[in-house]
Amino acid sequence: MDDTARRHNEKMKRIKAARDKMMETKTEERGLIMVHTGDGKGKSSSGFGMIMRCIAHGIPCSVVQFIKGGWDTGEKKFLRERHAKECRFFVSGEGFTWETQDRDRDVAAAQNGWRIAQEQILDPEIGFVLLDEINIALRYDYLDIDEVVAFLQTRKPPMTHVCLTGRSAKPELIEAADLVTEMSLRKHPFKDGVKAQKGIEF
Amino acid sequence: MDDTARRHNEKMKRIKAARDKMMETKTEERGLIMVHTGDGKGKSSSGFGMIMRCIAHGIPCSVVQFIKGGWDTGEKKFLRERHAKECRFFVSGEGFTWETQDRDRDVAAAQNGWRIAQEQILDPEIGFVLLDEINIALRYDYLDIDEVVAFLQTRKPPMTHVCLTGRSAKPELIEAADLVTEMSLRKHPFKDGVKAQKGIEF
Repeated sequence: MDDTARRHNEKMKRIKAARDKMMETKTEERGLIMVHTGDGKGKSSSGFGMIMRCIAHGIPCSVVQFIKGGWDTGEKKFLRERHAKECRFFVSGEGFTWETQDRDRDVAAAQNGWRIAQEQILDPEIGFVLLDEINIALRYDYLDIDEVVAFLQTRKPPMTHVCLTGRSAKPELIEAADLVTEMSLRKHPFKDGVKAQKGIEF
Repeated sequence: MDDTARRHNEKMKRIKAARDKMMETKTEERGLIMVHTGDGKGKSSSGFGMIMRCIAHGIPCSVVQFIKGGWDTGEKKFLRERHAKECRFFVSGEGFTWETQDRDRDVAAAQNGWRIAQEQILDPEIGFVLLDEINIALRYDYLDIDEVVAFLQTRKPPMTHVCLTGRSAKPELIEAADLVTEMSLRKHPFKDGVKAQKGIEF
């Protein structure tokens, strides 16, 4: 073994010792309120990545899509056609809000989605609920942020995970969340004329 | 219709007109080099969310996990047991590098992963390749960044998408990428003693 390898191995031993000690203090399991926000990609797709993990571990899931209902996304097709027993999939919205151009209809759709969301979160059979793009509905005040936060804080069963996605997450939601990730755009090919592509954006 | 609704609808009409015009300029389809980096969650899981979308759209995929091989992740179980025909799944690493404490073994594993990665990228049957946690192998110089970047730029088939994940992405890779997303931690429950949980972290 040469010197680089020896130094590396020693350093890794120290890291492992520190990490093991730190991990010993991490013993609590509980259902989390998670928020994926920011202007970058990956907010919804990482929610669906967690759905994949939950299905693998036998944790029944539920998805409520608030905005993207209007077109056929890969995630909807995949979960409805292939994993309907393991993951319920609801759609409340009819496309992005600039597609409908009808605020009253958007509000009704968002309220309907929130009604479904509450049922799913309260359902003792469900362990993980993805509220996809709910932040858009909250941002336009289609839903009342105080009502949503109060429900998550007081009615969510302790072991149920809820993940809320969409840009411009409200400060009240960030305050109430256990885990907040901001996805930021550092470089995007749309700027060079590349269109939204199957498998990547939907 | 009240005034708020009317103003909203007018505003949405303007947004849609601007958006439609912008989208008309987005006509190009091509395979992207995508990077998910940063200290936040969602780098791997959004890669797996894209795998879900690709499977739904009939795009054959391949995953090479560089670091996480040492334990049973949900994504590995799910894809190997349920979608083996649609997504190949390779593991090169044996856990995080502080677990092995053996640099030579880590280097050999990373090199083996990169050999598989190149085969998968070159395979004309594969449309999407996820190189999960390759940034860790690059960061520790288990792999040569110049070699990886040169391969992606000169040998990747034009329509093949490649997504590279892991914190501390090297500047050379960011420079070469089409799409870079930084996942940042704004709040994390590990700090309060919550441990890594099934379905969420793995």
